[in-house]
Amino acid sequence: METTLIVNPGSTSKKYALYAEDRLLLSFRYEVNGQDYYLSIDNNSALVKESKISKEVFDFACHDVFDRIEDSEEITDTKIAIVGIRVVAPGTAFQKHVVIDEDYISKLKSKEPAAPLHIPHIVKEINQLKEVLPKAVLVATSDSAFHKTMPAESHTYSIPVQDAKEFDIYRFGYHGLSVQSITRRVEKVAGENPSRLVVAHIGGGASLTAVKNGLSFDTTMGFSPASGLTMVSRSGEIDPGAVVEIMRVKQLNHRGIHTYLQTQGGLVGMTGESDMRQVLERRASGDEVAVKAIDHYRYIFRKNLGALVAGMGGVEVVVLTATAVVRNPYLRQLLMSDMEELGVFIDKEKNKSLVNAEGVISTADSRVKVVVMKTDEMGEMYRTTREVIKNGSS
Amino acid sequence: METTLIVNPGSTSKKYALYAEDRLLLSFRYEVNGQDYYLSIDNNSALVKESKISKEVFDFACHDVFDRIEDSEEITDTKIAIVGIRVVAPGTAFQKHVVIDEDYISKLKSKEPAAPLHIPHIVKEINQLKEVLPKAVLVATSDSAFHKTMPAESHTYSIPVQDAKEFDIYRFGYHGLSVQSITRRVEKVAGENPSRLVVAHIGGGASLTAVKNGLSFDTTMGFSPASGLTMVSRSGEIDPGAVVEIMRVKQLNHRGIHTYLQTQGGLVGMTGESDMRQVLERRASGDEVAVKAIDHYRYIFRKNLGALVAGMGGVEVVVLTATAVVRNPYLRQLLMSDMEELGVFIDKEKNKSLVNAEGVISTADSRVKVVVMKTDEMGEMYRTTREVIKNGSS
Repeated sequence: METTLIVNPGSTSKKYALYAEDRLLLSFRYEVNGQDYYLSIDNNSALVKESKISKEVFDFACHDVFDRIEDSEEITDTKIAIVGIRVVAPGTAFQKHVVIDEDYISKLKSKEPAAPLHIPHIVKEINQLKEVLPKAVLVATSDSAFHKTMPAESHTYSIPVQDAKEFDIYRFGYHGLSVQSITRRVEKVAGENPSRLVVAHIGGGASLTAVKNGLSFDTTMGFSPASGLTMVSRSGEIDPGAVVEIMRVKQLNHRGIHTYLQTQGGLVGMTGESDMRQVLERRASGDEVAVKAIDHYRYIFRKNLGALVAGMGGVEVVVLTATAVVRNPYLRQLLMSDMEELGVFIDKEKNKSLVNAEGVISTADSRVKVVVMKTDEMGEMYRTTREVIKNGSS
Repeated sequence: METTLIVNPGSTSKKYALYAEDRLLLSFRYEVNGQDYYLSIDNNSALVKESKISKEVFDFACHDVFDRIEDSEEITDTKIAIVGIRVVAPGTAFQKHVVIDEDYISKLKSKEPAAPLHIPHIVKEINQLKEVLPKAVLVATSDSAFHKTMPAESHTYSIPVQDAKEFDIYRFGYHGLSVQSITRRVEKVAGENPSRLVVAHIGGGASLTAVKNGLSFDTTMGFSPASGLTMVSRSGEIDPGAVVEIMRVKQLNHRGIHTYLQTQGGLVGMTGESDMRQVLERRASGDEVAVKAIDHYRYIFRKNLGALVAGMGGVEVVVLTATAVVRNPYLRQLLMSDMEELGVFIDKEKNKSLVNAEGVISTADSRVKVVVMKTDEMGEMYRTTREVIKNGSS
């Protein structure tokens, strides 16, 4: 049986999913939490394993995945012929879904200094996958490809045109695979196919994307995934002069400032807490630091939503997606309330009753429809990977 | 006769205004344009002198001002007892209007590396003024003081709280004197006193400020005056990762990146042109580079306006002020058109007929009233200076 392995590598989590004939067979999730490492395995209907693992298993997760598939009694005689891997990297060359060759790998490596927190993990994963599966075709599924339809006014920064070109400095945007998976299914859940849609992907990373007639029009993340919304550990928007000042007073080099803004910003920086549920609980119990942090988180969300809606000239549907908002009605209420002036009316009861499920949470007469949807990044990567194998890069 | 001298120092222009008993007697404007230096003098009713000057005269402009006042036949027996000077500097200590003492000057000097393009000019000017007028009282009129009412969610960046405090890294905002001068007079021109107002100051530097019940609620400039809107030579908003990447690939140090983003960004970076009128003319004649640049300029303006309106929860009046929009109906039309979804309807004829004058340019049934007003930074500095002398710092 020929199978496809989908890989989503990160610094604190690595996800794998095995597909055969468009069916998800097994998912693996390797995770770091403080000093501890965990693995959970799911067979598409239930959790089949959850255990603590060693750092070494985490570091070589794809070997572990392969061993487990080999040893599996359920999945016999499988041959992983195709691997799709998520690529988060700043560059026009990475705004495409393509078969990975040596040239692609060397391009990725050369961009490491521009994205020192993301690219090394991807390169390492690719190298390990090539070791484990030397004959498999590797496909890069780009997290930015969805955004390549952005018009010039959203795509460019106002820096010298020749520098933008020579050094490839543009708004690339991320969360593209997630947004694409939402766009594909929005009509089903919203009951309409909006010509102007905003997708709010609110997980650890968070972004808003304006989607016009099915295509990315603008997005809050930019050259890096650090900009835009306040996130769990990323700063989001910050004055360029402040960035330079932080580097100066804290004597940070390029790598240091990337690490600072992406791991010590956001709610972590404001509360010391890396679990949003904890911050929300502290807020609910009146903790002043948490109140301040969530007020800020919420305010920056509102501003960015207002910016994209004004940029697009209006909006019909807002989709809230990814773990943080799918499982948490309280957070959704915080983010979307007090927006009556903007035409957003949330039905409190509907919102409350929707937990880990999909549906509309706005009132019937809300000018803007607000919808909760589950994202399917892994499924989107699978579809994209098969598409590249069938029809070439895109 | 006791007089007050108001001083607005910059790198490419220096403005001086002499007041006596709340009356403007003379204004001086020293300007750089490429390799050439110019001076124009105005007696509050007409231009009395316009001439080319040497670099030396520009560099020691306040000496020149003093000599001219001394030699003046019209203004006799004047004694400049008070000097008010505009301070643009990032820091909580500079968000106040105060009498300048040695401590203030040393604080300013210590912040030079954080604002290398602004503070040195101010310090130099203060030193020259102290030479020329050793007995005068010097008052710092802060360009950020108006913004000290901003709530925490607009004032803070999501970086570690202790770093923000220790290194004084906040959104300070600028153009405060201009916005204050507008807020003071908006009712007169708009015919109403809006509880939610946005002031768009569109000159070489450009910013939007959300004013709620007369107080600054949020503003697009931040720690530095480089962020927010795309400006004539400043980049405005840009991804922090992109800032770091530009420093890396162009090997810029802290001073270098400040200079880059503040003098080679914006329309200058996108078109090579530092005169907006030229860019608009090139656009009108179909020049593709200019079309792209103005599209971007306009788009970023829309987004930022949308962000502030969403942040404030709505808006009743938008004021367009400062030279670029006061003199140019075409630019106003570009900035405020296609905003029907946001409740903005411009009366094309009214807009066209209003040149270098004040008035309403929206239609009678526009949900948002759009008003053109002249800013009065120098007058505001005068009022502020007198206020500090009378009632102490604020």
